[in-house]
Amino acid sequence: MPEQPNNDQIIMAHGGGGELTRRLLSERIIPKLSNEFLNPLSDSAVLPRPGGKICMTTDAFVVVPLEFPGGDIGRLAVCGTVNDLAVAGAVPLGLSLALVIEEGLSIELLERMVDSIALAAREAGVDIVTGDTKVIERRGGDGLIITTAGVGQLRDGVNLNPARIGAGDVIIVNGGIAEHGLAVMSAREGLAFDTDLVSDAAPLNGLIGEILDTGADVKFLRDPTRGGVSGVLVDLTEDTQLSVEVDEAAVPLTPVARNTADMLGLDPMTIANEGKVIIVAAESDAEKILTAARKHPLGKSAAVIGKFVSATPPLVELVTRAGGRRMINRPYGEELPRIC
Amino acid sequence: MPEQPNNDQIIMAHGGGGELTRRLLSERIIPKLSNEFLNPLSDSAVLPRPGGKICMTTDAFVVVPLEFPGGDIGRLAVCGTVNDLAVAGAVPLGLSLALVIEEGLSIELLERMVDSIALAAREAGVDIVTGDTKVIERRGGDGLIITTAGVGQLRDGVNLNPARIGAGDVIIVNGGIAEHGLAVMSAREGLAFDTDLVSDAAPLNGLIGEILDTGADVKFLRDPTRGGVSGVLVDLTEDTQLSVEVDEAAVPLTPVARNTADMLGLDPMTIANEGKVIIVAAESDAEKILTAARKHPLGKSAAVIGKFVSATPPLVELVTRAGGRRMINRPYGEELPRIC
Repeated sequence: MPEQPNNDQIIMAHGGGGELTRRLLSERIIPKLSNEFLNPLSDSAVLPRPGGKICMTTDAFVVVPLEFPGGDIGRLAVCGTVNDLAVAGAVPLGLSLALVIEEGLSIELLERMVDSIALAAREAGVDIVTGDTKVIERRGGDGLIITTAGVGQLRDGVNLNPARIGAGDVIIVNGGIAEHGLAVMSAREGLAFDTDLVSDAAPLNGLIGEILDTGADVKFLRDPTRGGVSGVLVDLTEDTQLSVEVDEAAVPLTPVARNTADMLGLDPMTIANEGKVIIVAAESDAEKILTAARKHPLGKSAAVIGKFVSATPPLVELVTRAGGRRMINRPYGEELPRIC
Repeated sequence: MPEQPNNDQIIMAHGGGGELTRRLLSERIIPKLSNEFLNPLSDSAVLPRPGGKICMTTDAFVVVPLEFPGGDIGRLAVCGTVNDLAVAGAVPLGLSLALVIEEGLSIELLERMVDSIALAAREAGVDIVTGDTKVIERRGGDGLIITTAGVGQLRDGVNLNPARIGAGDVIIVNGGIAEHGLAVMSAREGLAFDTDLVSDAAPLNGLIGEILDTGADVKFLRDPTRGGVSGVLVDLTEDTQLSVEVDEAAVPLTPVARNTADMLGLDPMTIANEGKVIIVAAESDAEKILTAARKHPLGKSAAVIGKFVSATPPLVELVTRAGGRRMINRPYGEELPRIC
């Protein structure tokens, strides 16, 4: 006797490639993601010939819990990959979606995650064009690991290269930092206080498109996910051999995010974001970029947070509200495990 | 105090995106996979503009055990994705590699898997162009989940479409079936008998390229992985509304594979392969295809195993060695869990 499904939980047989797999996909998953590339349900998707160089990226998502204020693993998986393409100056052409599901996962939860994937993909204007589904034995109850990959087409006339960064160039961020990591940590710790803190997870390709369309000479874009804003800035000092001065008072940070970080004993600069982008450009282009960003829903709080300076050894310094200076280091290991 | 690495096991901090992640990647992983696209170590890779339509695919690999006779999860992850591109008629342009590593995994084993990935990629003539690494808490000891995605460029003049299949068209396979699934099952069950059985995991893009280069009018290609040869043939009866007659005596199957399947009580036709391709073409093209296949190391035992016939309802029938007839169904659920 084959194992029988009870219709509300995933069983090993859902991952076996047989009739149950086919039904799970055709009844519960594919209809939510429907598009011309995915619908043939082949093991691969055929996309139109790109008009330029292509860009490829992948991310594995292991966030715990699967759902948190403002998002879930499905939304993250779409946004993370779309954003990696966008910060490379690419327009997304298609995403792949690989689900590794733990036996026992509620099918209702799975469907909610697929709905969330579909919604985030619509927001980004990109299709899930191909996928794979596997089931693993019941374990700790983490439930679901999602890996997305993305292919995009590089925009013409964009030249993103940290080697082009010079002293005096400014660092812009599109809004309040640390909200994703804090929202996940709060959900995980079951923090009892009432908080409006929600993850910022969002697809940034629209905002970045608007910024690049201004013709501003953007030299570098990066989404500050794991390692936070600090991680990106430390990387940049190594790539450019320039120092970075960050004005703490200028860094967008909501009072609720600041209070939550304080309570958890965490530095907001090192906390993961999933809807933020660091933009580096000549100071003369800053106004143009800020104006474009602030017109977009995801860029209303855009601000210049710091600049590159010639100072050796290259390091990141935070000029604090009190007027002091504090050096920022790369996080050594993991302060917030499984945040994305 | 941050958690300290002991240099021989993965710890959570290896996945945190900080200094330890950077060292794991730069010292243990990237050097083995080195190529011009991957080396910039950005979150994405830029590939040349393709000369035609592109093809995208993804697969998640959860095989247990991670190593088995003739292969391992790393080799599978490369071959599976390369083969999905190849059977779509595409030439691979680049692969992405996402590693989800369980805390406690031996770093030596991880390095062996990355070596295996590098070797399989060289065999296939394709680069790992981008990747991601995450660490999850210690659990059952499964250790490693790998998700690969691939992008390829469609070959000109190839028209793979099951709608083109007609009665009389022949079904060809490039060699002995069932060896991957049986090798994994034997390793898992710790079968005590001495067996030469090894997984057939191999990249098929070279063989398929040789076959398509003959100019034969190939109508359909598919790698019979989960669900085995039976799964592919049942799919084809549904797609074509034709029946399939398979000549059991013509199906390549080594004595050791047959004996192992008998002992495990499994039907070789339903067992996963990772280095086999089902080819459908007009009978008049069969000799051309067999000749090309047999010149390639992966096609030495290529054979016509059956043909399409007009018979309703559409079904797959096996004409047995004894001259009897047996209907082949799609496996209902999972006979061999976590085989790939």
